[in-house]
Amino acid sequence: MTNNAILLISCPDQPGLVAEVTRFLHERGGNIVNLDEHVDREARRFFMRVEWELEHFEISGKEKIVEIFKSRIADKHDMEFQIHFSDYKPRMALFVTKASHCMYEVLYRSQSISENWNVEVPLIISNRESLRDNAEPFGIPYHHFDINKENKKEVEQRQIALLKEHKIDFVVLARYMQIVTQDFINEFPNRIINIHHSFLPAFIGPRPYHSAAKRGVKIIGATSHYVTTDLDAGPIIAQNVHRVSHRDSVKEMMRKGRDVEKLVLSEAIRLHLARKILVHNNKTVIFD
Amino acid sequence: MTNNAILLISCPDQPGLVAEVTRFLHERGGNIVNLDEHVDREARRFFMRVEWELEHFEISGKEKIVEIFKSRIADKHDMEFQIHFSDYKPRMALFVTKASHCMYEVLYRSQSISENWNVEVPLIISNRESLRDNAEPFGIPYHHFDINKENKKEVEQRQIALLKEHKIDFVVLARYMQIVTQDFINEFPNRIINIHHSFLPAFIGPRPYHSAAKRGVKIIGATSHYVTTDLDAGPIIAQNVHRVSHRDSVKEMMRKGRDVEKLVLSEAIRLHLARKILVHNNKTVIFD
Amino acid sequence: MTNNAILLISCPDQPGLVAEVTRFLHERGGNIVNLDEHVDREARRFFMRVEWELEHFEISGKEKIVEIFKSRIADKHDMEFQIHFSDYKPRMALFVTKASHCMYEVLYRSQSISENWNVEVPLIISNRESLRDNAEPFGIPYHHFDINKENKKEVEQRQIALLKEHKIDFVVLARYMQIVTQDFINEFPNRIINIHHSFLPAFIGPRPYHSAAKRGVKIIGATSHYVTTDLDAGPIIAQNVHRVSHRDSVKEMMRKGRDVEKLVLSEAIRLHLARKILVHNNKTVIFD
Amino acid sequence: MTNNAILLISCPDQPGLVAEVTRFLHERGGNIVNLDEHVDREARRFFMRVEWELEHFEISGKEKIVEIFKSRIADKHDMEFQIHFSDYKPRMALFVTKASHCMYEVLYRSQSISENWNVEVPLIISNRESLRDNAEPFGIPYHHFDINKENKKEVEQRQIALLKEHKIDFVVLARYMQIVTQDFINEFPNRIINIHHSFLPAFIGPRPYHSAAKRGVKIIGATSHYVTTDLDAGPIIAQNVHRVSHRDSVKEMMRKGRDVEKLVLSEAIRLHLARKILVHNNKTVIFD
Repeated sequence: MTNNAILLISCPDQPGLVAEVTRFLHERGGNIVNLDEHVDREARRFFMRVEWELEHFEISGKEKIVEIFKSRIADKHDMEFQIHFSDYKPRMALFVTKASHCMYEVLYRSQSISENWNVEVPLIISNRESLRDNAEPFGIPYHHFDINKENKKEVEQRQIALLKEHKIDFVVLARYMQIVTQDFINEFPNRIINIHHSFLPAFIGPRPYHSAAKRGVKIIGATSHYVTTDLDAGPIIAQNVHRVSHRDSVKEMMRKGRDVEKLVLSEAIRLHLARKILVHNNKTVIFD
Repeated sequence: MTNNAILLISCPDQPGLVAEVTRFLHERGGNIVNLDEHVDREARRFFMRVEWELEHFEISGKEKIVEIFKSRIADKHDMEFQIHFSDYKPRMALFVTKASHCMYEVLYRSQSISENWNVEVPLIISNRESLRDNAEPFGIPYHHFDINKENKKEVEQRQIALLKEHKIDFVVLARYMQIVTQDFINEFPNRIINIHHSFLPAFIGPRPYHSAAKRGVKIIGATSHYVTTDLDAGPIIAQNVHRVSHRDSVKEMMRKGRDVEKLVLSEAIRLHLARKILVHNNKTVIFD
Repeated sequence: MTNNAILLISCPDQPGLVAEVTRFLHERGGNIVNLDEHVDREARRFFMRVEWELEHFEISGKEKIVEIFKSRIADKHDMEFQIHFSDYKPRMALFVTKASHCMYEVLYRSQSISENWNVEVPLIISNRESLRDNAEPFGIPYHHFDINKENKKEVEQRQIALLKEHKIDFVVLARYMQIVTQDFINEFPNRIINIHHSFLPAFIGPRPYHSAAKRGVKIIGATSHYVTTDLDAGPIIAQNVHRVSHRDSVKEMMRKGRDVEKLVLSEAIRLHLARKILVHNNKTVIFD
Repeated sequence: MTNNAILLISCPDQPGLVAEVTRFLHERGGNIVNLDEHVDREARRFFMRVEWELEHFEISGKEKIVEIFKSRIADKHDMEFQIHFSDYKPRMALFVTKASHCMYEVLYRSQSISENWNVEVPLIISNRESLRDNAEPFGIPYHHFDINKENKKEVEQRQIALLKEHKIDFVVLARYMQIVTQDFINEFPNRIINIHHSFLPAFIGPRPYHSAAKRGVKIIGATSHYVTTDLDAGPIIAQNVHRVSHRDSVKEMMRKGRDVEKLVLSEAIRLHLARKILVHNNKTVIFD
């Protein structure tokens, strides 16, 4: 595995941006292995993801690349940009409550050689003891925090301290049945991934399968999104659906839904880890 | 093609209903060719669709069957039921505005031998002249009604009169851009089929593709439903979806959506014509 | 949970079968909770699945029900039939090789309370040591059999002996990379479930993803089926698909395929456990 | 609508190709509005589609652009390339036999303002009279050629002459029930689009729905592909599928299949018209 750099750009659109960026990399010995760009015509905004091999690249070190790219290219085009190195293993914290399917799926993939997720999971956090035994075989410390209305803010501060201590890069809410507060979200902007068990924006809030059954829909779904302070309204990363019929009770919908949930959440994590997501204006650009 | 009878039943659940109904038909020489039943456990309600050949059936005539079935079976079990004969061709009125794709699809199928829809389309009604030329090759009279806020109630009365004159059984709103009033709906309870260009209950109301693009969903859809007085909230008959991405402008979403809309609407009409839909409690039971 | 009986029937079609069977059950106090029937018009064959509560049923014991149903109904209509009790927990043996995703999925579900699978898994059998550690947390004995061309028949005999010793009802090949012989199959007719990593009948045999990539298909799939002596040609139970594009390397196809495989295999097992599958003429009737 | 140029490139992969091409266009005043590239790692081949506005582009005329791009860029990198102008309306010939659904769909779209297909359809060719009346409302000349074993080669020569006379760019076989010969194919390499009514490579050849029903598959499909001399084995452009069950007779499969066929064929034509397809090694790269 060679070490690659990944550059994500978001800026006002104008002619020549692709030519300029690719030339910058090419002239410094960067062999581009992936390039994807998108122009949002309506918003007149340009998005780009480019990945190149670092082996013969002239500039060494992430800070140096950031510095030079910023001064030569980014500043004059008012670019927001990020640079990631593929040999860094992002650190994920997994938040769970009682439902085990998403936790299992995510932990299984995080440890599967064939899935090849490039992730470190230093800890699991829960507001319940329920899944401690299920988590045990995966060998990841399980931290239980008792949460109630009174202590919520204080508990979250302790959680944040724990996450910082473990140098957590991003958080995954794997059917975590607590609404996280604005303070918590502010610590991880566009770095908290939630799975909501409905096809958003339909059935926001609790008990979406009950609402779906009551409405008599013929298709159910699940949505993974970055968490913002607006409940279930953050930028959508991935969605998928499953057919249902009048024969499906709420329980059957939940059964079918679990499979959708765990795959959609896994897809969002995979995209996040591969640095394939750009967020702008509460929407995602997914370069996959 | 033999002539078959179709019996649709909805009643409080209790043991022995299938045995009793099938025995009733069997003892009178009715050869059952299709039987489907469903019990809604939560609502404790029983639904059944049974189709039998009339050839050797002892009782002649729809009224007679209704009368005898009512007195022998239906009354004592508090059944709502309908009986339809397969040799009757239901009469459909098609309402359109400017978008041609649903109109074309429905008219094509209504005249296609292989689709074999068993329907009569005596007239098209529109609030615009736009599609008169497109409708012309299908040889169906096109009635234009100018509608505005002031004359809406009066125009609807004229429309109802026209529908009655043509003995219309059910109405299809094929992207008809007018909200029909309660008076109109009352004339055709569970007999007005609408296509809404979103995956309901998401994006109720006008311009759903614009809302979908704004929200950044990854899947769009379409929903056919019976019209009730609650806007876009009637019993759902069929739904389907299509993937979209950040690359899809509103226009592209509309393009992908049109294919979903026309197929979903056609599916709802097919099911309605085949007497495969039962409505209870604002939801459909689809025996297909 | 009440104990229910499930009756599966396959016989030449003729009028009155549903009436006769439901009357038989109803008259003996059997409250029918599910009934599904299907007539294959071309083959003139009748299929039925009926489930009833045993609580107030007059006849006690499976053997007695079999005996009386056979003499009163089955024999005169040339019926093949099976009767199952819902309180019996079928015993499954899991065969694996190197790929872990299907094994994990099946074991997770077999132990998940919400999946509620009603199954006992007394043992895992493998031709490799590879997955012993992965299986360990599930607490199920892992039996390794070294297999080669020379000892294959003899090893299979030992496997069969082991399966009999553990009173195994059915076998699941969860990406087991050995072709089982006719002798083995004969021991478990329509009771060996395989997952093939292609959309059968396309890409029979080994390395289907390589073949799919070479052919340039735009959709890949997976197929679960009962194993017969004809390779990858047994009765299909479940299939599903996933979109691919020119961007997907063989490795990417494998990644997408794994998710399809594990869900399709799980679906087949669920249907098998719920006694919802009838096999006739190398095809399945799925009453779900 | 501005006039854009579209450049399609296929060549051996090497570093710097994107930079070089985008720089070439940018330096000559070409504002790039779409860029998509793909590297087939295994085949070590580079593919690119780039679209730019001609308004301020220095080089005038397609021949001139071809000439300069060839001498400056293409030759030294061993590129195969095509250049298309978006203001040219490709001319399509439609071949049909008896089934009307694909013909209707294609003609409807070719004339629909919202579909905006940018195509001219100067003629329909058929080996039957069956669809003459159906084609009539679309106002396109319908040419009937009686074909049999003896006259096939000679008829094809007359068809080719007719196509040339009408300056036909590409041919669409819309459920045309004749196998076209090598001579015919050679006249339109990668410019004959066929719709096959199965999920290729499953069920090659005639009567695929009968084969699908016999095999008991749970999903059927349709495939559009460029025609090569190897029957049903040309480069696949688009595929889609539909669920079926034991309840679906061959006739029902055909009904469900028709909807898939007509949408898949339309998708292939749309992609072809938009110059979004590159063919290499009997596979397609679809830049959509």
